Amino acid sequence: MKTYLDCIPCFMEQALNAGRIATRDEKKVKNLLDEVGMLIKEIPMEHTPPETGAIIYRKISEITNNNDPYKEIKAKNVSHALHLYPKFKQKVDESDDRLLTAIRLAVAGNIIDLGVGKKFNITEDVEKILSQEFAIFDYELFKKELEKTDDILYIGDNAGEAVFDKILIEELGKPVTYVVREIPIINDVTKKEAIKIGIDKIATVISSGTTAPGTVLYLCNDDFKKKFKKAKFIISKGQGNYEGLSGIDSPVFFMLRAKCPVIAKNIGVNVDDIILKFSQR
Amino acid sequence: MKTYLDCIPCFMEQALNAGRIATRDEKKVKNLLDEVGMLIKEIPMEHTPPETGAIIYRKISEITNNNDPYKEIKAKNVSHALHLYPKFKQKVDESDDRLLTAIRLAVAGNIIDLGVGKKFNITEDVEKILSQEFAIFDYELFKKELEKTDDILYIGDNAGEAVFDKILIEELGKPVTYVVREIPIINDVTKKEAIKIGIDKIATVISSGTTAPGTVLYLCNDDFKKKFKKAKFIISKGQGNYEGLSGIDSPVFFMLRAKCPVIAKNIGVNVDDIILKFSQR
Repeated sequence: MKTYLDCIPCFMEQALNAGRIATRDEKKVKNLLDEVGMLIKEIPMEHTPPETGAIIYRKISEITNNNDPYKEIKAKNVSHALHLYPKFKQKVDESDDRLLTAIRLAVAGNIIDLGVGKKFNITEDVEKILSQEFAIFDYELFKKELEKTDDILYIGDNAGEAVFDKILIEELGKPVTYVVREIPIINDVTKKEAIKIGIDKIATVISSGTTAPGTVLYLCNDDFKKKFKKAKFIISKGQGNYEGLSGIDSPVFFMLRAKCPVIAKNIGVNVDDIILKFSQR
Repeated sequence: MKTYLDCIPCFMEQALNAGRIATRDEKKVKNLLDEVGMLIKEIPMEHTPPETGAIIYRKISEITNNNDPYKEIKAKNVSHALHLYPKFKQKVDESDDRLLTAIRLAVAGNIIDLGVGKKFNITEDVEKILSQEFAIFDYELFKKELEKTDDILYIGDNAGEAVFDKILIEELGKPVTYVVREIPIINDVTKKEAIKIGIDKIATVISSGTTAPGTVLYLCNDDFKKKFKKAKFIISKGQGNYEGLSGIDSPVFFMLRAKCPVIAKNIGVNVDDIILKFSQR
């Protein structure tokens, strides 16, 4: 997805929010906003938003001298989601369609997104999403393709969300490679959290090599690029990965909640809609 | 009021919104955002937000070649408010306290603010505000000072809001000088709209000389500055005037609805609270 003009004030807002989490020194935050301001004229609008995100979050690290501002928040989100894990597993056990309930939970976990700046309440929001209609629902195709495949590439998004991904991985019944970010970026999942959650026990965990808050192929490492090219069944979680991968000619199932109006419009849905969308349809 | 870091993404958002109203050429809007981005490092945080607003809106005019982007919207707001004028006058006629009802209406009119970007519905919102508790309510002081004064300086804010100001002026029972902006800026009231509304029939209409979306004294003309300095009773409408005049040692009654979180925090109230606040208390 290209960058829209609406993304520009949002970049500034994200820099302010992340800067304030990274440091209490308001002068450094002002300096950060100055730098992001000067960067605007350099942003190629045909680039995807996560490419610019990578540059902005790198500036945040440099200026505030903090390369993992969301460390504590991620740990708290993961621990909270792990605490709720048995309750969510029970929802799967009690449901008529285990796979669908697990997909719903995986989409619900996508509310734990700190880039967008929306407030969320895990317990309440998950309950809502469990009974929400999908705006795009390629579920029959998902089941058909899942049956055919013998290997799944599953691209994670946020750290707390990965607990919900674990629940879905446990229902897929096929070998899964779970893909994380190379370095801490916003509250996205890295190897550290994937291991903490125990995803390494049920899947192969690899890094895509990206330093962007989304999967932008040319910024990824060769190993991931090869795996992505060969893959017959890819799950892409969240907005950042959608922004990076939409329009790519690969068999990707996008699972996300549309939290920002630009992405919602790009997909053709409303803000807060939930989506299970196949890229090749 | 000084500029807060939170104002910076908001400047960018305002530039985007106003730019899109001023032109359909997205390239010009991007060029505008580039310019505003480069401006950020030049913003003195000790300046008031309307001072920066003046620079940004001048850039909008220059880049889009449109020096009154809100012209049609203002005309529509004024015409809509004039259409509702008899209904609102009736509310004053039917009330136990004519002055208080007129003040409430004048505050209610302050919802017609297109800088903040909030949506509003004149009829519904006015009804709500007519029964809303004031968060700060210096009404007794207002009545006491009003009785003593023989001259009122009334600083207007938005164009449509001026119809509501007219209702209050009609209840004040003292000579009023109604102050408007020098040039079109956002949807603020200028001489043109004040005359269209008929305020010139019941008050002396003058321009403060400001080209900012708020009253910043050093940017005003000498005539206004003299009048302001001598004034014993000043009414200041809306956020932009509050931002410019708060902290000044003059007898000002601020009437506004706190629509932005930064101003709400500065005043010590919540967003959407309504205020009748005396500066010298």
